[in-house]
Amino acid sequence: METRVSDFKEISPADFFYRNRDIAGFSNPVRSTYMAIRELIENSLDACEEAGILPDIYVKVKITKRENERETIELSVSDNGKGIPPEIVPNAFGQVLFGSKYILKQSRGTFGLGGKMAYLYGQITTNEALRVVTGNGRTAHEFKLMIDIGKNEPIVVSRKRTRPGRKWRGTGVTFSLEGNYIRAAPKIIEYVSETAMVAPYANITFVDPDNKMYRFARTTPKMPRPPKETLPHPKGVDVETLQRIIATTRRRDLTTFLSAEFERVGKQTATKFTKLFNLKNKDPKTLTHEEQVRLTKYLLSYDAFLPPDPSSLSPLGKELFQEGITKELNPEFVSVESRRPSSYSGHPFIVEVGIAYGGAIVPEGKMRLYRFANRIPLLYDEYSDVSWKIASTEINWRRYGLAPESDPLALFVHICSTKVPYKTVGKEYIADRPEIEHEVINGIRNVARDLAIYLSRRQRMTYEKKRMDLFEKYLPIIARYASRVAKVKEAPSVENLVKKAKKLPLFAEETA
Amino acid sequence: METRVSDFKEISPADFFYRNRDIAGFSNPVRSTYMAIRELIENSLDACEEAGILPDIYVKVKITKRENERETIELSVSDNGKGIPPEIVPNAFGQVLFGSKYILKQSRGTFGLGGKMAYLYGQITTNEALRVVTGNGRTAHEFKLMIDIGKNEPIVVSRKRTRPGRKWRGTGVTFSLEGNYIRAAPKIIEYVSETAMVAPYANITFVDPDNKMYRFARTTPKMPRPPKETLPHPKGVDVETLQRIIATTRRRDLTTFLSAEFERVGKQTATKFTKLFNLKNKDPKTLTHEEQVRLTKYLLSYDAFLPPDPSSLSPLGKELFQEGITKELNPEFVSVESRRPSSYSGHPFIVEVGIAYGGAIVPEGKMRLYRFANRIPLLYDEYSDVSWKIASTEINWRRYGLAPESDPLALFVHICSTKVPYKTVGKEYIADRPEIEHEVINGIRNVARDLAIYLSRRQRMTYEKKRMDLFEKYLPIIARYASRVAKVKEAPSVENLVKKAKKLPLFAEETA
Repeated sequence: METRVSDFKEISPADFFYRNRDIAGFSNPVRSTYMAIRELIENSLDACEEAGILPDIYVKVKITKRENERETIELSVSDNGKGIPPEIVPNAFGQVLFGSKYILKQSRGTFGLGGKMAYLYGQITTNEALRVVTGNGRTAHEFKLMIDIGKNEPIVVSRKRTRPGRKWRGTGVTFSLEGNYIRAAPKIIEYVSETAMVAPYANITFVDPDNKMYRFARTTPKMPRPPKETLPHPKGVDVETLQRIIATTRRRDLTTFLSAEFERVGKQTATKFTKLFNLKNKDPKTLTHEEQVRLTKYLLSYDAFLPPDPSSLSPLGKELFQEGITKELNPEFVSVESRRPSSYSGHPFIVEVGIAYGGAIVPEGKMRLYRFANRIPLLYDEYSDVSWKIASTEINWRRYGLAPESDPLALFVHICSTKVPYKTVGKEYIADRPEIEHEVINGIRNVARDLAIYLSRRQRMTYEKKRMDLFEKYLPIIARYASRVAKVKEAPSVENLVKKAKKLPLFAEETA
Repeated sequence: METRVSDFKEISPADFFYRNRDIAGFSNPVRSTYMAIRELIENSLDACEEAGILPDIYVKVKITKRENERETIELSVSDNGKGIPPEIVPNAFGQVLFGSKYILKQSRGTFGLGGKMAYLYGQITTNEALRVVTGNGRTAHEFKLMIDIGKNEPIVVSRKRTRPGRKWRGTGVTFSLEGNYIRAAPKIIEYVSETAMVAPYANITFVDPDNKMYRFARTTPKMPRPPKETLPHPKGVDVETLQRIIATTRRRDLTTFLSAEFERVGKQTATKFTKLFNLKNKDPKTLTHEEQVRLTKYLLSYDAFLPPDPSSLSPLGKELFQEGITKELNPEFVSVESRRPSSYSGHPFIVEVGIAYGGAIVPEGKMRLYRFANRIPLLYDEYSDVSWKIASTEINWRRYGLAPESDPLALFVHICSTKVPYKTVGKEYIADRPEIEHEVINGIRNVARDLAIYLSRRQRMTYEKKRMDLFEKYLPIIARYASRVAKVKEAPSVENLVKKAKKLPLFAEETA
């Protein structure tokens, strides 16, 4: 009855995600179509922005076969980004848990997994190879690749140098998957248009299977400052991280080690810290396990480190966010607040909140909340998201004279971080960390207040306008009547009287 | 500006889950405490049930250190299961993506990941080794282990043969983690008591940090039939699976290959299938890639295969489920339906639905839905689950005269499958597959109808009782009055009259 040794086996990471593609959002043809397009657009935008290039993204969806409910879709996504070195291409596209996203800075892809899940899904549903073309402006290379799922290794079907045009730079990917475009289309179009909202500096062209072109044109050449790679912050450290840093450091005493390998630790702070905890300034490589554990505990408990440096973040900023909202929704009023950087468990983050009112916005009987994280729109599982929770339960909208269900109102929350606390690999919704909640609440309150002030001013102006209309209409009549009674031939000018009336206190305020 | 080769790197599966522990539910001390206890109990129950042993599970939580908000918790979980061969112990506990759950049969653990995530979380927050004792009734072994996260390899700190008592059998695990028991406690107790609800054949003892003991005692020695390992069903196959099977098969012609390696494919079906699609009966190992792709397509499109064999499943069954609900909730009425097996994409599944009414159940102003999957209670993210969606939007409760928000009513849905389509690694909620939705809807309708019938019968009986009370009260009075008027000394017996009245049609029906 004992467990047999043969009951146990090891599987590769590719195999794990092949077996569990549901958890990365590839659960059915509809959802997988959406996910594949989404992940590829995100990779393309990242490739451009990391290099400071204004993005030109081109997406084409073709239905190549249709049998009953089954559609085969050919998906092409290309960008004008910095390209990928040819020696890296096979692994970058054909090995799960290999990629460029495993460093500390804000990027859309956090798991370094999404694109590969799309290719993997394409391979297992259509068994066709992935085609990659990539160039850096001098040379270009074309690969056909498949993934050996059991071994988690790329299979290079073919490769060649190519000349896709003089000085061509960027990466283009074409592959097939079993999908269902028709049913996925509304979410996809929504996704692309919300992406355009937070990337007003990008050209995004989307061509659907009927050759209908959706074009989201760049309206500003301004891009957010690209994020910088950062060192780990001492408040986010654990023994595992500490051990890894010790293994690679070239520093030979504790204070230089701390100030060189951690973010926001200067020479002075390091000295103060080691003194406070009575640490000998010895070679970090000689620390015993016990000492490593203690050092970690001290780092976590010391409260005088500066908060994490937000230069690893790339928020949109007030101006760009406003530009994006206006461009896509054309409202009567917009207010955006880009909050000051904050942090949770050593990860820096910035919350940006916007509110828009009137104009082309129509009420939908339900609060309109646009959620973004690291400039990705989040479209699924709204009710599980921290922003929904706050906007629907923690904000007293009546205090601002607002009813988000019935007013022509839209709310926007953008959270950017080196580590967005997603609750799924599918990047659908954000967990409720107290530090993030705090920022979202305050952000919403501030923009709601801005809107309330705008609306009360507008109301007052409407009232004032009406009042002046009354004066302007009746004062001349009164004047004419008075002159008739007084038998004066010409009625006196009431212009000055009207002007004076404008300076009188408002009736509303007098009775208030 | 080109991407540098050095920007790319490979990380191990352990490293991936170390970086992204949020997605496995280890997002903060409260949640991690809950997850760790949950995953270990599930592993223990699986270890017993797979061997057909009535489970005795012992869980002890100790708080060993407390500094401000930070608690260090020592968690011990032991079972009387079949034990683990000592040569497997290091990898089984110290290597991510190595385990016994990667075969085709129903088990609580689907990702083979949960326990290891708990140890990994414990290690990174406390840096203490995991202690494992395991025995098979003859010998026992004790290990102290850690995980090399970067390499995804176990580190054996110590190992010895031990004698924990004569003929001791089972596995016990003790390790420390940073947690927050106080805030996690309500969910943990709820989890254990719901587990007891669907495992009335188990003894579960839970000792909290105050040494308070919660004991959920076995009320039946009956266990559900243990699930059998199964072959892949042709309707769930893809080219990847086909290639793997071809690589290991010893069959040398297509028809024997199909009938030996796939579920529910007999010799006759295989012959019929190959004839229909005009396939040569050749050695599967000689199939070209194109032929493999075509064969896969044919397998998926052929509609005459029998549905997947549910013997790889282990539903609770009507009787045990009813027993469990009654034991924990003590209601006035219970109805359970264990539906017939069904399947989605080649995975068999069974839905079991229960309804309970009255007794110790009190309405809570909100529908009480107990969700289970492979005998695991699901406690988080209720609103995203397929069962919630159906119970709250697809069932017309008024048709059954029920109001689930205000009636003393509880609803139970248990889904078991070789592959529960969870949407997260944290196993919180189930995706909405049409085939599963169909079963859940019909199950709920049937038990709701049972309850409606019970309630209308109860109402009728109350009415009837009242009516008889009236007869019994007034007939003697009328008789007495009549005898007085008729000057008869003794009033006649009305007993026969009352008996007759009972046989008369009900007033309610007469006027209806």
